Amino acid sequence: MNRPVPNAAVSGAAPAADGTRERILDIALRLFYARGYTGTSVNAIASEVGLSAPSLYWHFESKNELCFEAIRTELLRFVEGVERGADAKDPRDRLGGFVRAYVLLKLAQSERLERPGAAMGYQQLRSALKPERGREIDVLQRRVLDLLRGILKAGRERGLFFFGDLSATSFAVITMCEYVFLWVRPGGLSATKIADEYRALALAMVRCV
Amino acid sequence: MNRPVPNAAVSGAAPAADGTRERILDIALRLFYARGYTGTSVNAIASEVGLSAPSLYWHFESKNELCFEAIRTELLRFVEGVERGADAKDPRDRLGGFVRAYVLLKLAQSERLERPGAAMGYQQLRSALKPERGREIDVLQRRVLDLLRGILKAGRERGLFFFGDLSATSFAVITMCEYVFLWVRPGGLSATKIADEYRALALAMVRCV
Repeated sequence: MNRPVPNAAVSGAAPAADGTRERILDIALRLFYARGYTGTSVNAIASEVGLSAPSLYWHFESKNELCFEAIRTELLRFVEGVERGADAKDPRDRLGGFVRAYVLLKLAQSERLERPGAAMGYQQLRSALKPERGREIDVLQRRVLDLLRGILKAGRERGLFFFGDLSATSFAVITMCEYVFLWVRPGGLSATKIADEYRALALAMVRCV
Repeated sequence: MNRPVPNAAVSGAAPAADGTRERILDIALRLFYARGYTGTSVNAIASEVGLSAPSLYWHFESKNELCFEAIRTELLRFVEGVERGADAKDPRDRLGGFVRAYVLLKLAQSERLERPGAAMGYQQLRSALKPERGREIDVLQRRVLDLLRGILKAGRERGLFFFGDLSATSFAVITMCEYVFLWVRPGGLSATKIADEYRALALAMVRCV
């Protein structure tokens, strides 16, 4: 039986069966978000991982590639999580699952990255990437929007959802979910409760109550 | 009959009947948003206004005060615009008017400041202000949230609105409106059309369809 090829192989590095690559990506993402692209040195990342900078370059050919991989890995995890959440037959279950997964993943991400201003962090990092790498990120992001558009269209075609403009409605739902972490306070509503509230709000937005 | 005291008097400057003060604030806001607090010098602002830096200091005692006044003036215009929009008797008209005004003002502001990443700009500027000035800004922002909470509560008490948690619902509506400019493309839906769509979505969110 073939074992899956480790991700590391993609970037030309040796497979990191010990999880080093994942640790580098996790720490890099947190530092990039906290300090910005220019404010984060490869040395600082290496030192927090417990490696020398040269060993880190053995895993990633440049700071820019490391930043790209850190963003891509995080975003891919998010996109796949939302896709799993929306994996159902009925458009109502798909929309509800989409929103619930989106909110839960965003709240978890925001806690992990300890960032109140994630929108800012992301835009700055995105603009630091090489154009072709930035476009790869955009394609991943687009998958989430396209998934939602597909769900809304399917619900409308089956006479379950009622709404006006498809683009306005899709973006309104996405925006509401994307920035949920901006107002959530520690000790307030639980993530699950918020996810359930947002699920109900999204279904209400398409008059499916 | 007493004429209203010009705003300039508040900051100790002479009344600028010629609109100089307003022009300074407009240009300052645009530059602060475009280049950030540290990236914007008083010289650059003065030069674009067509004044010397010393003449500008005659209107504003420091760069920090100028930044505060620029943000405050813009935010106050926004808050008062939203309050006017929500000025009605029926909670349904109040919610619809609130959302319409919010969206139209945000879209106009985003166009005026030529900024795709306004959320970022604002947070950076906000954190550059002196703490007591920052709190004055927060108080203004809070007025918008409190207005919406009041509308939602009134609608629920009168049996017109149905929703779960008041905080989650208020923030979901605010977030959807606040970041509307992030996805709007030139040549796409008109601002009025978007405002109408959002109005309908917000009413749907409280099951008022």
